[in-house]
Amino acid sequence: MSNPDSIYRERRERVYSYLESGGIEYAILSDNEKSRNKSTTYLTGHPSDCVLILSSAHEATLIPWDINLATKHASADQILPLGNFERNLKRIVEELILPSGKITVELSSLLSFPLVTELKESYRGINFVCREEGIDNFIGRLRESKDSHERTLLKKACEITNETLEILYRFLKEGYAKKSGTTEIDVALFIERTGRKLGSEGTGFESLVASSARSHEIHPYPEYSNTNFFTRGLAVIDFGFKYGGYTSDVTLPIAIGQIQAKQRDLLDRVTGAYRLALEKLKENPAIGELAASIDSYFEASGLTMPHSLGHGIGLDAHELPLISTSRRGKSNSGEESPKFREGSVITIEPGLYDPELGGARLENDFLITYDSKGSGEAASINVEELTFSKPLFL
Amino acid sequence: MSNPDSIYRERRERVYSYLESGGIEYAILSDNEKSRNKSTTYLTGHPSDCVLILSSAHEATLIPWDINLATKHASADQILPLGNFERNLKRIVEELILPSGKITVELSSLLSFPLVTELKESYRGINFVCREEGIDNFIGRLRESKDSHERTLLKKACEITNETLEILYRFLKEGYAKKSGTTEIDVALFIERTGRKLGSEGTGFESLVASSARSHEIHPYPEYSNTNFFTRGLAVIDFGFKYGGYTSDVTLPIAIGQIQAKQRDLLDRVTGAYRLALEKLKENPAIGELAASIDSYFEASGLTMPHSLGHGIGLDAHELPLISTSRRGKSNSGEESPKFREGSVITIEPGLYDPELGGARLENDFLITYDSKGSGEAASINVEELTFSKPLFL
Repeated sequence: MSNPDSIYRERRERVYSYLESGGIEYAILSDNEKSRNKSTTYLTGHPSDCVLILSSAHEATLIPWDINLATKHASADQILPLGNFERNLKRIVEELILPSGKITVELSSLLSFPLVTELKESYRGINFVCREEGIDNFIGRLRESKDSHERTLLKKACEITNETLEILYRFLKEGYAKKSGTTEIDVALFIERTGRKLGSEGTGFESLVASSARSHEIHPYPEYSNTNFFTRGLAVIDFGFKYGGYTSDVTLPIAIGQIQAKQRDLLDRVTGAYRLALEKLKENPAIGELAASIDSYFEASGLTMPHSLGHGIGLDAHELPLISTSRRGKSNSGEESPKFREGSVITIEPGLYDPELGGARLENDFLITYDSKGSGEAASINVEELTFSKPLFL
Repeated sequence: MSNPDSIYRERRERVYSYLESGGIEYAILSDNEKSRNKSTTYLTGHPSDCVLILSSAHEATLIPWDINLATKHASADQILPLGNFERNLKRIVEELILPSGKITVELSSLLSFPLVTELKESYRGINFVCREEGIDNFIGRLRESKDSHERTLLKKACEITNETLEILYRFLKEGYAKKSGTTEIDVALFIERTGRKLGSEGTGFESLVASSARSHEIHPYPEYSNTNFFTRGLAVIDFGFKYGGYTSDVTLPIAIGQIQAKQRDLLDRVTGAYRLALEKLKENPAIGELAASIDSYFEASGLTMPHSLGHGIGLDAHELPLISTSRRGKSNSGEESPKFREGSVITIEPGLYDPELGGARLENDFLITYDSKGSGEAASINVEELTFSKPLFL
């Protein structure tokens, strides 16, 4: 599942152009336990825990915590163990960058205020730049448009997810019919085993399996428990599978037994919102307008969705674009009313949560592309449905 | 498993004293997907995703992403949904803090440079403080000494881990004898199912199950795969279970089949280092000295351990203290040669990794306490072994 070296080199070339056009000699990104930055994986293939230095001389230096892991997975011009630098970013700057003289170095916007302040104060000869709309945002925008290689990996992750869904529907129907003592744990581990046996390298995030008493929590804690799954009411299952580092993300609402009219109504509003969102999506809306149309749909019934309508997926379970009215119609780059970008892979996932009735959420994944038409005509949008989750009635 | 409200109130009182003694009116901590800060859980019981504001007026305001989750789990004087503030820290400052006039506000040291800079520039009337040795470090040091409530939860997590280890040893011996086609996935999900059925709310981190071809990676990717687990050589299994939010952390090295003399030697050096570390630990060493003694033990044979000897465990899988020579004999508070603190729960986990021979790591968890003796005598250390992982020979 490793990508060829050339893919990472091409991606890095785009970052080098960013550096050159901004008069920046070096950029430093860091991925660690306290602050994950999957852009390091996007640019090198290295799975996790590293510092990555990119230079306007078109050189990538990867400094991994685990050198053996890097040797196996990573594409870079130079690989140096983090242990050589006492696992310390200051030492890395001193040894690899300081000798270069008076230069501009861009630091990842994810780095902490005290760390960046210390670097600025320690090396006054270097012009450190660290800004919200900087290199992380630039790479985030690259990652928003999946290239053909990424689309292949995401489609494979979604295929595994669809096969798992089919097997899961059967498992749940049979378990319910047999009045089995199936717990949330049984369901979650059945899902994980199934997807992994089908070739996934793991779940993209901790699966959520919430039976009726807990389904009104958006992110229940614990994610699954020893509770009997087949208790009457509304249940929610939310999971995703990784393939080649890229994760899918689906949610199915489940009505168990004879549910109340109000519960049925809550579920119907969610599926109604889902259908409406798909219709709107096919009209090539501005992202903020799409989100606003669903918020309005719910508000018309006096209801509120407490999370965004959807988000990009990829190396992270949550990537650009965020499909939410809280963007207030502006993209990260300041653009007014941005539309979906060519190659975006997004979720649509309306949900409602009521402490008395329970929760319902329906979520699937979509690839957005555009047909380019003749001059003067607007490009038309293609919305490719990648996953096929649907409500289940037991 | 929820703690009584009084426990969180007591913990917050210690933070209020910190604020008062530093002339700070408010402190702001944040836990989100991009930057985890379990100190919010330590102080309120809320599982994840929130902003927490503590004031010198002894008031805690929790601003959770999921209000239903907070209602169920959290202790705070005031709970306000994050949605009320457009999920935006600036809006929170404007509405809850700005009206207080000219004051000092300490921001978590985990916040990003651009965010803190924006707050400083937007609200010049507020004296924002954001420093490495600040509030996060203060709370980290509180968390380093586990209170009686935390010890109970950690001991329970370790009991579940020990029971799982016993069941796992049997599972592996029987599977190997039967020449079963057991994969790394089978092993990992067997472990997870066993611990959860025994009452754990989940693994403390993604379990690592590396058969001989991958055991030389410290953090193999993927964490477990479809590979047959019972291939001859050295394998490693690393897992931990959460109870009440607190996680254990153990590793067992496994010799499968007739291993080479060099592989046996590598394993023996790891178990030798482990025994030596325990002996030293019982002599109440400075933390840095303990780490240095094991580094020297390996260096005497021309070997290098590429990670630290151990670390604290608790709400995070990695907490203070870090048992490493990279501390260079200084604690986070600047103390020279600090010793272990009363109530620390730590791992000891020497390991060696060779791309040809494979890897070996042995890890268990220990509670450190001290007997207070009569005046003039030094307190004597108690090292309570909480878990019982050991090498397995198949």
